[in-house]
Amino acid sequence: MYQPKDSSQSPRFVGLRTFMRLEAVEATNVDFVVAGVPFDTATSNRTGQRYGPQHVRNFSILLRPYNPDQDINIFDYCSGVDYGDFDIVPGNIHRTYENIEKSLEPILDHSITPILMGGDHSVTLAHLRAFKKKYGPIALVQFDSHGDTWDDYFGEKYMHGTVFRRAVEEGLIDVDHSIQVGMRGPLYGPEDIDNARDLGFEVLTMKEVRKLGQENVIQRIQQRVGNQPVFVTYDIDFLDPAYAPGTGTPEVGGPTSYEGLEYVRGLDGLNVVGFDLVEVLPDYDSGEITAAAAATIMYEMITLVALKKRRNS
Amino acid sequence: MYQPKDSSQSPRFVGLRTFMRLEAVEATNVDFVVAGVPFDTATSNRTGQRYGPQHVRNFSILLRPYNPDQDINIFDYCSGVDYGDFDIVPGNIHRTYENIEKSLEPILDHSITPILMGGDHSVTLAHLRAFKKKYGPIALVQFDSHGDTWDDYFGEKYMHGTVFRRAVEEGLIDVDHSIQVGMRGPLYGPEDIDNARDLGFEVLTMKEVRKLGQENVIQRIQQRVGNQPVFVTYDIDFLDPAYAPGTGTPEVGGPTSYEGLEYVRGLDGLNVVGFDLVEVLPDYDSGEITAAAAATIMYEMITLVALKKRRNS
Amino acid sequence: MYQPKDSSQSPRFVGLRTFMRLEAVEATNVDFVVAGVPFDTATSNRTGQRYGPQHVRNFSILLRPYNPDQDINIFDYCSGVDYGDFDIVPGNIHRTYENIEKSLEPILDHSITPILMGGDHSVTLAHLRAFKKKYGPIALVQFDSHGDTWDDYFGEKYMHGTVFRRAVEEGLIDVDHSIQVGMRGPLYGPEDIDNARDLGFEVLTMKEVRKLGQENVIQRIQQRVGNQPVFVTYDIDFLDPAYAPGTGTPEVGGPTSYEGLEYVRGLDGLNVVGFDLVEVLPDYDSGEITAAAAATIMYEMITLVALKKRRNS
Amino acid sequence: MYQPKDSSQSPRFVGLRTFMRLEAVEATNVDFVVAGVPFDTATSNRTGQRYGPQHVRNFSILLRPYNPDQDINIFDYCSGVDYGDFDIVPGNIHRTYENIEKSLEPILDHSITPILMGGDHSVTLAHLRAFKKKYGPIALVQFDSHGDTWDDYFGEKYMHGTVFRRAVEEGLIDVDHSIQVGMRGPLYGPEDIDNARDLGFEVLTMKEVRKLGQENVIQRIQQRVGNQPVFVTYDIDFLDPAYAPGTGTPEVGGPTSYEGLEYVRGLDGLNVVGFDLVEVLPDYDSGEITAAAAATIMYEMITLVALKKRRNS
Amino acid sequence: MYQPKDSSQSPRFVGLRTFMRLEAVEATNVDFVVAGVPFDTATSNRTGQRYGPQHVRNFSILLRPYNPDQDINIFDYCSGVDYGDFDIVPGNIHRTYENIEKSLEPILDHSITPILMGGDHSVTLAHLRAFKKKYGPIALVQFDSHGDTWDDYFGEKYMHGTVFRRAVEEGLIDVDHSIQVGMRGPLYGPEDIDNARDLGFEVLTMKEVRKLGQENVIQRIQQRVGNQPVFVTYDIDFLDPAYAPGTGTPEVGGPTSYEGLEYVRGLDGLNVVGFDLVEVLPDYDSGEITAAAAATIMYEMITLVALKKRRNS
Amino acid sequence: MYQPKDSSQSPRFVGLRTFMRLEAVEATNVDFVVAGVPFDTATSNRTGQRYGPQHVRNFSILLRPYNPDQDINIFDYCSGVDYGDFDIVPGNIHRTYENIEKSLEPILDHSITPILMGGDHSVTLAHLRAFKKKYGPIALVQFDSHGDTWDDYFGEKYMHGTVFRRAVEEGLIDVDHSIQVGMRGPLYGPEDIDNARDLGFEVLTMKEVRKLGQENVIQRIQQRVGNQPVFVTYDIDFLDPAYAPGTGTPEVGGPTSYEGLEYVRGLDGLNVVGFDLVEVLPDYDSGEITAAAAATIMYEMITLVALKKRRNS
Repeated sequence: MYQPKDSSQSPRFVGLRTFMRLEAVEATNVDFVVAGVPFDTATSNRTGQRYGPQHVRNFSILLRPYNPDQDINIFDYCSGVDYGDFDIVPGNIHRTYENIEKSLEPILDHSITPILMGGDHSVTLAHLRAFKKKYGPIALVQFDSHGDTWDDYFGEKYMHGTVFRRAVEEGLIDVDHSIQVGMRGPLYGPEDIDNARDLGFEVLTMKEVRKLGQENVIQRIQQRVGNQPVFVTYDIDFLDPAYAPGTGTPEVGGPTSYEGLEYVRGLDGLNVVGFDLVEVLPDYDSGEITAAAAATIMYEMITLVALKKRRNS
Repeated sequence: MYQPKDSSQSPRFVGLRTFMRLEAVEATNVDFVVAGVPFDTATSNRTGQRYGPQHVRNFSILLRPYNPDQDINIFDYCSGVDYGDFDIVPGNIHRTYENIEKSLEPILDHSITPILMGGDHSVTLAHLRAFKKKYGPIALVQFDSHGDTWDDYFGEKYMHGTVFRRAVEEGLIDVDHSIQVGMRGPLYGPEDIDNARDLGFEVLTMKEVRKLGQENVIQRIQQRVGNQPVFVTYDIDFLDPAYAPGTGTPEVGGPTSYEGLEYVRGLDGLNVVGFDLVEVLPDYDSGEITAAAAATIMYEMITLVALKKRRNS
Repeated sequence: MYQPKDSSQSPRFVGLRTFMRLEAVEATNVDFVVAGVPFDTATSNRTGQRYGPQHVRNFSILLRPYNPDQDINIFDYCSGVDYGDFDIVPGNIHRTYENIEKSLEPILDHSITPILMGGDHSVTLAHLRAFKKKYGPIALVQFDSHGDTWDDYFGEKYMHGTVFRRAVEEGLIDVDHSIQVGMRGPLYGPEDIDNARDLGFEVLTMKEVRKLGQENVIQRIQQRVGNQPVFVTYDIDFLDPAYAPGTGTPEVGGPTSYEGLEYVRGLDGLNVVGFDLVEVLPDYDSGEITAAAAATIMYEMITLVALKKRRNS
Repeated sequence: MYQPKDSSQSPRFVGLRTFMRLEAVEATNVDFVVAGVPFDTATSNRTGQRYGPQHVRNFSILLRPYNPDQDINIFDYCSGVDYGDFDIVPGNIHRTYENIEKSLEPILDHSITPILMGGDHSVTLAHLRAFKKKYGPIALVQFDSHGDTWDDYFGEKYMHGTVFRRAVEEGLIDVDHSIQVGMRGPLYGPEDIDNARDLGFEVLTMKEVRKLGQENVIQRIQQRVGNQPVFVTYDIDFLDPAYAPGTGTPEVGGPTSYEGLEYVRGLDGLNVVGFDLVEVLPDYDSGEITAAAAATIMYEMITLVALKKRRNS
Repeated sequence: MYQPKDSSQSPRFVGLRTFMRLEAVEATNVDFVVAGVPFDTATSNRTGQRYGPQHVRNFSILLRPYNPDQDINIFDYCSGVDYGDFDIVPGNIHRTYENIEKSLEPILDHSITPILMGGDHSVTLAHLRAFKKKYGPIALVQFDSHGDTWDDYFGEKYMHGTVFRRAVEEGLIDVDHSIQVGMRGPLYGPEDIDNARDLGFEVLTMKEVRKLGQENVIQRIQQRVGNQPVFVTYDIDFLDPAYAPGTGTPEVGGPTSYEGLEYVRGLDGLNVVGFDLVEVLPDYDSGEITAAAAATIMYEMITLVALKKRRNS
Repeated sequence: MYQPKDSSQSPRFVGLRTFMRLEAVEATNVDFVVAGVPFDTATSNRTGQRYGPQHVRNFSILLRPYNPDQDINIFDYCSGVDYGDFDIVPGNIHRTYENIEKSLEPILDHSITPILMGGDHSVTLAHLRAFKKKYGPIALVQFDSHGDTWDDYFGEKYMHGTVFRRAVEEGLIDVDHSIQVGMRGPLYGPEDIDNARDLGFEVLTMKEVRKLGQENVIQRIQQRVGNQPVFVTYDIDFLDPAYAPGTGTPEVGGPTSYEGLEYVRGLDGLNVVGFDLVEVLPDYDSGEITAAAAATIMYEMITLVALKKRRNS
């Protein structure tokens, strides 16, 4: 049974910074693994997301096992480890994609839920490719301030802003059960949103989110996904920059971190089979504000694993 | 036709940091110009606002031409440039005022809308003097946590906190159509608010703003200004310090950046002829939180120019 | 009559950084004293709270005497000084406790209201011991994201997270009139909250706070405390990390600084006899966001002293 | 007898940040006073030197009374206080100059040695005016990377780069016994150095300093000054930016802080009657590197006062 | 005649941050151009060098036209502009190389000396390719703490640490007249140095540099290069981290910035036809220490252009 | 055989931050272990050294196995691991001392050389206690700007500044073969140095070090220690603050990091049986300058282990 080091016996600042003080082993007899995907070659503006996973780990030592909002002690129901980082190849996205897929294979083979930390958003394409092999096209819930369905940047097809167009083209996503939430900020044109809809996604822009209200948005997500196996991708720039300055393309006017957590909590009941949290960029963080938000979102993702296990047990 | 460099062809971090990647020329065949007024001699406490314009430019490379909240592609309707900075004289407010007025003259003569970046709030007096020459006394909408109607500091009459008293005394403002929004925080006495009202301004303190609600406040502004030509001055300390730490006299308990943007959007329909955004102080910013808010507010101001042009075309 | 230096005559950045530019003397013919308690030996994770008091003082020079939200000019009703810091002993909590008690004695003997700045939360135990001598067991209002009623850390009984259990055990608190507000974030188990209730506290978790709404929470506090003399302890981590990153154990999802101020304003009418504000940790602050919040909370505490004096005069 | 608080009894981080933990009083029965002159209106580029004095005070709490390099316990021979800051007027250099002169008058009248902390270098003109009244034209030793003998900036005559030309014009300096040391970095033209020589100064550029070697330079200073009463002005940009990044116009290729201290130590034997240390700009400091250098230079200045007193006793 | 804006007429902080306040045009009737190459895809560890050029520009506004160490007013002899940045393609090194070559072509065609700012060191390969076309294999002077002659990283052949092996393989370098200076720090094995020698370079490790002394090293460089046209590549990590923390792979124990400047000055007399300065990484800079060093090195490079022109005129 | 991960196969930023990318296991079949001792309760001024070990680990991923200065590939001769951190008890120095001793026991029992990272300097007392059990009183080489032989602070006997007096009193040190190097900076009195000599230490102040020159100092150390088993303790404040700002009590005027490394290299030939590097305080570091110096010093310590093994093999 893998669980965090006991912080009432050993101070939290003691030891290597693993996620939540979990053991650092590549175990496969667990319910979830946390792993880093420190790749940032596919960024169109700010870069340095390769340091994201370690930054989130640094803060995560403050997390404790009992989640009062969901009323569950995670480790009463599941076991997990910090699996380390996948071996990426800086500068080479295709070799990186291969490595990620290969790294995810044994994890998915053992029906473990991976909870991944980017890296820029381009890594999600590799995640979805790996899931495709096991689940076929999968439903997607995307929290993000950008749809990331552009076609190319400077002629480059594989960038952090093109990933969901590529994913649809490759047939990785079950678009009919997929939804994007939180789009906002200046765009190149109205087609930036329309294109995502043309690809089949349901899209709730931030403007619509504010009109609907949080509870209705959660309901819409639940309805859209239904019983399909679903992958949740969370771009930290979904949050307002006051709550997450440390990211590559911040957009003013987003949700608070409280709201950002509630959306994850609201996914309880879905058949979530994988997660990633991407675009944490420590060089722009300050006082670990972003790391705090990111680590706690990861924690709510892990909680969903525990809740699902309790539900199914 | 002047418009930003195409960021899908050339990465946004390439090239000099002009506002929104606009061309850096002193063109007068445009609809709007963005210009910096890097003066900070008139500050009573923190200083360094001279670096404000460049700080805002640094972030602004992330802005894109289509504004989804107002549903308009700015450059379908108007053309603009980054005019550079006006030549100010550090340490000498009067010579600086002369320079600003002289710099604004050709811009206003060509009926271009200037969108100015301070500098401390004292620069607005020079802006208003220049507008007076063209429009006579002009309506003013001021978003700010301070009324800036003190009489003097340490015996000095021209400071960033005395600018609107001076402006009224000089007959630059049409006070009957002018309004101040957002006053809050500790004061020297109740007269600090009363004085502004005695000068003729309508004043909505933050406490009143919270009671009225955003939509009613916007309505009050629209009614107050009516059809008059109006200058909009936006002190970044209007926002809560969590959303804009990088400023000279932050006051806890202000609006979010989302609300701060909505107020600008709510000015659509008014006959706005000029704008400034002041008091950005990079040394206290962190992770470019303040720069993000400031650049996006500037962007909403430019959008108003485009909306007005569309309306009138 | 002790009051702040006049900032319209002398710039606020001139002179030593005393709280609110008050005189720095150990006067006892005053209504309130501000004092620092720079102790941080009892921290379980991040440390450096010893610099908290000076950090808050640094920002506080921006505060002015008239409080528009409570409509009172503080120094029309009361007089106060910056008493300096108490002589603590780094590394030795028991000798520190003795020093704090000894330092508070003359203050309480003169019926002065102390407004104290920590330091980590462990210092509150010494504060309560000193108040016990004068008032007997005293009511407590605690704003905090943690209950701080754990029994020990690593076998240590006197830590910043055990202080209110110790206080109850020592009979320092009138628990029937005491209330904890704001608990949230991951815990070791459900008992972390239950234990506080078992000790006799009323506990309003953040989840409950959000359900009740701010006005109802204030009412609950007022009812709980009634007419008892009450000590208010405010852990800055009560606020969301976006509003107060500079603290030892931030928990995502807390109140805004506006809400954080409103809770203090809502204590008007109670018989508050002492305050502390703890856990400000400058090394994690950025752009003085936390200092701004902390100094303004202190200011609202001082305002309560003035309001009480006006009420009683 | 005024001396620092005993740091073996009370931790150094306890209490207000006075220089070296000296008492904060405007005493005139002392041998030296430390005072701040937080003026920065006359800066041609970076600004914020108004925070210099407090920044130096913050670090100075680490200083102890015995100077092993000069083998003297300062307070065995002299008594001193932190006199606070002089009341300057931001934005108005002439009123500021008057205030400084007025503030220095009682100090000089009591034959106290003032050890002043700027502020930008323009404040030295006021210092020299005050000394002129007591001593007539006075010898000057200037450590600096710039000569500061330009005639004007943007038409302004009173700026931090024109101060020694003004001083010579006003007859404040006994140029025949005055020397400038350390000039380096790009200039507007060769006349920038020649002008200082034309005004009568001996000038040792950094290039000459490196050729001569430190001991010879010290000898040259001693010979130049002779027995004249001398004022020492130390611009922190004399040091290399690696040792003092926190300043307004850093010039690469300067002395180490060790060398920078040795120059002050080398002044022993001269009849130094006053000092200032200027151009500390905290916003560009990091890890208090600059503050450490500046505070220790101040400390060596105070040591010179003690050495002179021992010599004369 | 292109030269910097006059900083005695307009403050240095006014206007866009071009290098040294030069005009920002793509002029070809000049003697030198400064241009940025903001590419950082080929980094093996820290990334973010794409922001290097703008960071150096930000500081460079402090530079003035007269170089006292070389006794020359640059613009008496030559004319230059800030050419902007070359259009690189983040994530795609081969397309980036093509763009760089294409951008350099018109510059070299007009016999202009390019002074380039990286970006990571991989960009130098493209620079050398462009020079090859005009000059054939060219001599190289490399100041660096690493030889950058590794064969590959993680199987990738084009990385910032493989660039000079590739350059030799492609026949771009006249190795018999080429020299590497400054190698130090932990290595993978002794072959890391030997390999460079096997490729034909003369290599002076830092250990050898310290033994030889600066003057002898300069003589060795002069002798090695002789009369050949030479390209100078300067990796900012040549300097000790105290003088240049803002870089990707700092190695402790390097030269001071003074020494670092002297090496460039010592190249006077050589037939230098191009320069680059690479690996400035702003996210690790503090107080602009690195930017100061880098901008001043660039300035000494420009001075060499002026000296050569004076010599040849 | 334990050795670092191969950075030519896997990027250095991938994976948990262990020292030098060594495996993170508590192995005892190795030649050396690196371990952290994150204790900072015994600091008299700045605190936060508990984060020192992780900060040094963060930088150490840049270290490579071959040391060119000593011409040895470490892992050709020895094997080592990152042992993690010892379980300290924040706030309780005596229980911490017990834990450290207990943790060191198995390491010393297996004749492994521990290379320890503090933590404040108080931890060295526990290290010496553990070594006493195995070796009896041991020789000590101390690089430091302070002697740390004060008797108490504020009445506390166990502080980071009293550790070597306690060690002598407890008979842990063979003072006749022990030496302190680098003392400088303001003191409480001349006895601060004399006391260490009275205790039996040879003391070389920085002033003496500068007179003797580095080679002579190294010779003095070698002679003093002779053939005795020796423990090396290195306080990072031995270095000048420009090279190591991130520490608790910096003293201006110290050695460069190059010199700081040479002193460790100069210990080759001694029978060193243990090391510690203490007082790294990340909150005051900037751009990882201090971390770079500290990690490289650790690396030179490990090299000494390898050299000794080669010598003895």
